[in-house]
Amino acid sequence: VTPSQSPGAETPVKRLTAREIAEFVAGELSGDGDAVVHGVAALDRAGPGELSFLANRHYAALYRDTRAGVVLIPPALRELPTDPGPAAVVVVDDPHAALLRLLPQVYREAPHAAGIHETARIGRGVRLGEQVSIGAYAVIGDNAVIGDRARIGDHVSVGAESVLGNDVILHSGCTLYARAQLGSRVIIHSGARIGCDGFGYVFEDGQHRKLMHVGRCVLEDDVEVGANSTIDRGSVDDTVIGAGTKIDNLVQIGHNVRIGKLCLLMSQVGVAGSVRVGDGVILAGQVGVAGHLTIGDGARIAAQAGVVGDVPAGETWSGYPARPHREALRASAATFRLVEIIRSLERLVAEKK
Amino acid sequence: VTPSQSPGAETPVKRLTAREIAEFVAGELSGDGDAVVHGVAALDRAGPGELSFLANRHYAALYRDTRAGVVLIPPALRELPTDPGPAAVVVVDDPHAALLRLLPQVYREAPHAAGIHETARIGRGVRLGEQVSIGAYAVIGDNAVIGDRARIGDHVSVGAESVLGNDVILHSGCTLYARAQLGSRVIIHSGARIGCDGFGYVFEDGQHRKLMHVGRCVLEDDVEVGANSTIDRGSVDDTVIGAGTKIDNLVQIGHNVRIGKLCLLMSQVGVAGSVRVGDGVILAGQVGVAGHLTIGDGARIAAQAGVVGDVPAGETWSGYPARPHREALRASAATFRLVEIIRSLERLVAEKK
Amino acid sequence: VTPSQSPGAETPVKRLTAREIAEFVAGELSGDGDAVVHGVAALDRAGPGELSFLANRHYAALYRDTRAGVVLIPPALRELPTDPGPAAVVVVDDPHAALLRLLPQVYREAPHAAGIHETARIGRGVRLGEQVSIGAYAVIGDNAVIGDRARIGDHVSVGAESVLGNDVILHSGCTLYARAQLGSRVIIHSGARIGCDGFGYVFEDGQHRKLMHVGRCVLEDDVEVGANSTIDRGSVDDTVIGAGTKIDNLVQIGHNVRIGKLCLLMSQVGVAGSVRVGDGVILAGQVGVAGHLTIGDGARIAAQAGVVGDVPAGETWSGYPARPHREALRASAATFRLVEIIRSLERLVAEKK
Repeated sequence: VTPSQSPGAETPVKRLTAREIAEFVAGELSGDGDAVVHGVAALDRAGPGELSFLANRHYAALYRDTRAGVVLIPPALRELPTDPGPAAVVVVDDPHAALLRLLPQVYREAPHAAGIHETARIGRGVRLGEQVSIGAYAVIGDNAVIGDRARIGDHVSVGAESVLGNDVILHSGCTLYARAQLGSRVIIHSGARIGCDGFGYVFEDGQHRKLMHVGRCVLEDDVEVGANSTIDRGSVDDTVIGAGTKIDNLVQIGHNVRIGKLCLLMSQVGVAGSVRVGDGVILAGQVGVAGHLTIGDGARIAAQAGVVGDVPAGETWSGYPARPHREALRASAATFRLVEIIRSLERLVAEKK
Repeated sequence: VTPSQSPGAETPVKRLTAREIAEFVAGELSGDGDAVVHGVAALDRAGPGELSFLANRHYAALYRDTRAGVVLIPPALRELPTDPGPAAVVVVDDPHAALLRLLPQVYREAPHAAGIHETARIGRGVRLGEQVSIGAYAVIGDNAVIGDRARIGDHVSVGAESVLGNDVILHSGCTLYARAQLGSRVIIHSGARIGCDGFGYVFEDGQHRKLMHVGRCVLEDDVEVGANSTIDRGSVDDTVIGAGTKIDNLVQIGHNVRIGKLCLLMSQVGVAGSVRVGDGVILAGQVGVAGHLTIGDGARIAAQAGVVGDVPAGETWSGYPARPHREALRASAATFRLVEIIRSLERLVAEKK
Repeated sequence: VTPSQSPGAETPVKRLTAREIAEFVAGELSGDGDAVVHGVAALDRAGPGELSFLANRHYAALYRDTRAGVVLIPPALRELPTDPGPAAVVVVDDPHAALLRLLPQVYREAPHAAGIHETARIGRGVRLGEQVSIGAYAVIGDNAVIGDRARIGDHVSVGAESVLGNDVILHSGCTLYARAQLGSRVIIHSGARIGCDGFGYVFEDGQHRKLMHVGRCVLEDDVEVGANSTIDRGSVDDTVIGAGTKIDNLVQIGHNVRIGKLCLLMSQVGVAGSVRVGDGVILAGQVGVAGHLTIGDGARIAAQAGVVGDVPAGETWSGYPARPHREALRASAATFRLVEIIRSLERLVAEKK
């Protein structure tokens, strides 16, 4: 057995002609319909065997000089100069969306070979589903339950009594603390830590005494957790991440937090303990949410905002302390207008006194 | 030998009756004193064999529908409706505090089995204390000194010449760079990196040349470091974290920083190089402290604050740039009142000109 | 073979006399020229066998009580009291700079012993350069190419088809996802994740559907990446970090980002997808940059700033939303002056109505 790899690497698997591309995206072909591509790349990096795309006029200079074999362009830009130009051009309304649809035609994830690496250590009482793969030096704790087709990368540590659904992917070097609960199709990226001790102490006898954490850490179906993110388990309550919610890299979720379904948490977000987040909420990059607050369904919090009060459903908030986005923008604008008149205002006030 | 696990998993170990619970917390029992619980859970997740608690009226609806076997409630809420209601209720002044005291009666940490896993690699000249446990695939560098009863998890890397006190816990996959110094009862969570190279360069001959870092990284007794946090070692000076200080997940401590005793650093805090933090300081989530500053004993910095000047002892500061909290609040309030009158003010100033 | 260690530990290797030190830094010696030091430490931690330095009057009290054997001091402070004082003093214009130049005289990095640890797993078709060292439990994926003198630490995972230049250092427990491209002399610290899936989804049929990421993650020559940082690979474009750029701990770089040469990204910076950063840019701690923006050559962004628009070359910006630093300072000052007069202003406006 050779070293297993972290799952998920895409590899080019199919060659497409410009004609096949035009058909697939229902676009209009001009140039050599027999031109062949076997990969995809940005305009300034693509070679003659690669497909690229031009999204807007901003990148006209890159299009002029591109060496790409086939380029997807929008109707409005079809007359842009390019020399010598690609072998073929496919005109399509939304080239970026078309390209994303084409990717699975050209690439395929590295095939999944079931099997337990000879160096993986499997604890007592572990139940493994069918067609499971476990990588080199992975460690599975006692009594863990692993669903069908799980792909567990190198150096992964699965805590005792954890329960994983079907089709779970654990990338290289992530950790599940004991008793983590993962639904089906959950993806955990490299270095993420699931079910950590929460940050809870009582000050007693001149020390911060550590509180026991007996709650669980529950990730429902289709949750994805980015690299090096950390999710604490509950103290008494559970920490729960709702089905279909996606979490980016370096995010922190505190103990007893409950996050709804289909949320998006961008990179470096921090959610303090016991927060309730509704369904379909978006927390943009570096947002912080203070403890015990509630964020309603469908709310959106702008990047870097600091949330210190409840946010009603459906609203967009920003700034520190976070307020409804329109108010925050008006306050920011007023402040910059103030700069121009503050001296006159001080004089006015002095005259009145 | 089976795979060792990350230390610290709590397991239910004892059944308690409602009567025993009431006695232990000196509360008033009503209902079935023989009702038995064997675990603890939140009101909306607890089953008939579990103990729960009601902290305040906010959760009255959860109490009404709870399936918990026994519930701790405060005197003011003893008449709240619940149907069919728990088998027994224990009335106590502070149900949450009572529950935390009860946890060690119901749960116990997974027992600690001393022993070196057969796959652990121990370097030359390593000195191991008594009753040490070392997990699967852990690597201990040359000449390291490990105190009594240390519990070292799977995939841990302990750098050469590190010195660890007694009763140290290193969770799965953490790293000590060479020559780290850990006191007794230090806990390092999964993925934390202790004693990293500091971020120090001099620009010379058109390059950022890396500076040597020959200082140490010293964690005194009873320090805890959260998952995926990073603490740099000193360049010339040492980096020192004082006794009893607790550090949450994803925190960054720069080179040459000295943090006092019994501080609390919440998640995602960043402390730049050469900062001095006194004793008993609280840095809330996502706080940043610029380099070479001093924060006095007992100061508290509110979440997301950006500290760009020294903070006197005992004060609470907030905002960016951080100021005394009252000032920051008044400035924030004034700004939002400004929004309502900025046009009138501009007209006033224009009239005066 | 003993357990390999993470590379990079400095060890004292040479004894120097006060006379040798004075000669090396072209300073003026007073006291015992034969006094010997074999290490370097801060004033309050140095012992008789150690060299220290006094940078400014702020640390006069530490100098008075120091036990250091030899101290570098600036001319202006040569008369400061100290008792009993060091065995020798060397007066030099910039003691800190002098000390940094002396470090490589006293210390040397732990010697590099080439060799593949017996527990390292090397995939099929891997090409290893000369004098490579690979640590315990490291895993090298199929078809990876490793340059000469690479030093790969314990528990490292190198993804399939990755390409590494010469003299690369990978510290303990870092991960390269498949097809990462690293130039020569690249250093990756412990727990960093290179080439992660980007955070890209389309909402379709009531789900966030994951987009394929077929771009690469390219780190040019002399790039250094801090502990637990994360860099996503491109979706269609590549993610590129330019030559000589240094990235601190816990930094996040999104997909398709291109960062220029010789930049410095301090700790906890977050750069969202498709951002373009020029050469020689400095992003200070906890800065966030929103997606698709451009930051010009030589720009500097102050700590915690939130960049939501393009930044011209050479400018210094700060605050949220980030603005030119002078404007941001004036706005902040005006706000605090507003506090004193807001009531009077409201009265003025009311009178006018």
